[in-house]
Amino acid sequence: MANVTIVGAGLMGTATAWPLSDNGHTVRLVGTHLDAEIIASCKRKHFHPRLGRELPRGVESLFVEEIAEGLRDAEIIVSGVSSPGVRWIGKTLAPHLRPGQMIIAITKGLEANADGQLTILPDALASELPARARDQIKFAAIGGPCIAGELAGRRHSCVVFGSRAHDAAEKLARIFRTAYYHIWTTTDLIGLEYSAALKNAYTLAVGMVFGLLEKSGGPDAAGAFVHNTAAAVFAQACTEIERVLRAVGASTAWAYGLPVAGDLYVTSAGGRTMRLGTLLGKGNSYVQAREMMAGETLESVEIVRAMSAALPKMFERGVIAPDDLPLLRALIDIVVNDKLIELPFDDFFSTGAVSKLPD
Amino acid sequence: MANVTIVGAGLMGTATAWPLSDNGHTVRLVGTHLDAEIIASCKRKHFHPRLGRELPRGVESLFVEEIAEGLRDAEIIVSGVSSPGVRWIGKTLAPHLRPGQMIIAITKGLEANADGQLTILPDALASELPARARDQIKFAAIGGPCIAGELAGRRHSCVVFGSRAHDAAEKLARIFRTAYYHIWTTTDLIGLEYSAALKNAYTLAVGMVFGLLEKSGGPDAAGAFVHNTAAAVFAQACTEIERVLRAVGASTAWAYGLPVAGDLYVTSAGGRTMRLGTLLGKGNSYVQAREMMAGETLESVEIVRAMSAALPKMFERGVIAPDDLPLLRALIDIVVNDKLIELPFDDFFSTGAVSKLPD
Repeated sequence: MANVTIVGAGLMGTATAWPLSDNGHTVRLVGTHLDAEIIASCKRKHFHPRLGRELPRGVESLFVEEIAEGLRDAEIIVSGVSSPGVRWIGKTLAPHLRPGQMIIAITKGLEANADGQLTILPDALASELPARARDQIKFAAIGGPCIAGELAGRRHSCVVFGSRAHDAAEKLARIFRTAYYHIWTTTDLIGLEYSAALKNAYTLAVGMVFGLLEKSGGPDAAGAFVHNTAAAVFAQACTEIERVLRAVGASTAWAYGLPVAGDLYVTSAGGRTMRLGTLLGKGNSYVQAREMMAGETLESVEIVRAMSAALPKMFERGVIAPDDLPLLRALIDIVVNDKLIELPFDDFFSTGAVSKLPD
Repeated sequence: MANVTIVGAGLMGTATAWPLSDNGHTVRLVGTHLDAEIIASCKRKHFHPRLGRELPRGVESLFVEEIAEGLRDAEIIVSGVSSPGVRWIGKTLAPHLRPGQMIIAITKGLEANADGQLTILPDALASELPARARDQIKFAAIGGPCIAGELAGRRHSCVVFGSRAHDAAEKLARIFRTAYYHIWTTTDLIGLEYSAALKNAYTLAVGMVFGLLEKSGGPDAAGAFVHNTAAAVFAQACTEIERVLRAVGASTAWAYGLPVAGDLYVTSAGGRTMRLGTLLGKGNSYVQAREMMAGETLESVEIVRAMSAALPKMFERGVIAPDDLPLLRALIDIVVNDKLIELPFDDFFSTGAVSKLPD
């Protein structure tokens, strides 16, 4: 049995407490400074208000001020913060880390620096640690389709644990795996993280399709919906992500597996990103839509921004071409350049294996 | 402008009349012997009762008895029958065909012969023609996500036209393409047809997930649904289809494109196959579920049966292994062997690029 400490008491971080607790591990849940109300409820009633569930038996909840106690004897740390918190959690964990610990992250995102270079979030977290600690800690991340409330509801969920250290991915999988939480492993951490981030960005485009329908007055008299259009955007999203994966040297097979096709399917079923996409599709500019969703973390937007910063350099290096990514470029126009929505259907599938005539 | 005759007045065949008519082509719609009521309504009121729409202006409707007149001067024939009608339409068209005509099919399916050899439906149709006619006619098929009522509602729809004859695919695309009907072409007719057929079969499994939820009493008190599970089945479906495409020498890129990921997305949004899957998931045996849906054409079932006949030979030839297709084998157990449903999550992603640890 292992001691596992989850830092960040949001939906997804907290949800990992269910399989961990079901496996008999000792689980502590430490809130961030944004989670004080949640932790207060967890301490008082053993109830997580956002998940709408009692925590599993034995899970101990702690305020951020109690983090030293929360991390005592922890063998595994789950980084449950959202992307703006990744550097904070690196700095916060630094003084408490010990050789041999493992950190597994649920955060989805990509960071671009001023030069347009992209960093996956586990590396951003690691970069906040002293060099010595970095070498003695193993980092991992979770990808694949997993809505937190469904994991906490013990629904069958299939995910991928990625780590550059094969043994760490396998060990973590053994610790988290249950009869309902099915886990595969990979050393292609880069591919897993790009997939998780990018499918979030592209979910905006799926949402836009439904917004465009609302704008046009909804289904017509004969009931025609827009599943065809959403499906085309869905396929173009998988296609463009496959091209980015190829460009960064990652496994392109994720495109039709859990991290891309699977996760895009789940993200398109609802949630914040779909809500934002729908607002955009209805004809709101990004600035207007952002205001309507004030106060919500929108990781999809940050990912579009990061790609906007990174693409010019990628085009320059010739690893990918503008024509490979018409949908992503449309998203950048909408989100970064605040243009009004237009989906470039006729530019879809314009390059690559799908559109070329095989011999 | 071209003379186009649609044979088969079901949903999808008829829906192609909209882009054709919008492009100014002469369109005739000939019903089969099953479509007499539909054609009567089309003749009397110019209204297609199943689509719930008036036909586009100028479309002429004809009974099957008038097929000779319907095919007079036709340059392009749309085969709009469902899979049980494919050999019928071959036989029926045979006496009326002329050199240089093109036949484009919307039917989704695969036929297995007694030896377990699979035939795509355009080839099954062609095999009913005299050898001389076969060589003088060009055959094509349509794949990709397209619900008929949405095409008729002029929603943006993205599809792929496949033909072994490049010029035929391109010519047909030029004739059908509109501002809302976006068409790509391929010579990989085999891959397109396998994709269209297989995603239909796998949609059953997605439906089962929602049936299992109903059986277990629906969402729990905290509202947990089963999107995670459906997404895993979705990704496994794309993964298994990729393996079959590889085994038959087709383009594996369809797996994350319109014909597989895109079309599976649309088919999973609702319809007969999802209804059958849901009935199975709720705990009905296939025989029971089939009775509840008596009278409906269930192409998904015929495709599962065809694959059941074909797989032993494919395994023998070593082009694919049983472990590559755990979900398809579960579908065969349920549909062909009338076993009760159990989804083999832990056998998913067990072989192939996604589950292997890349170096």
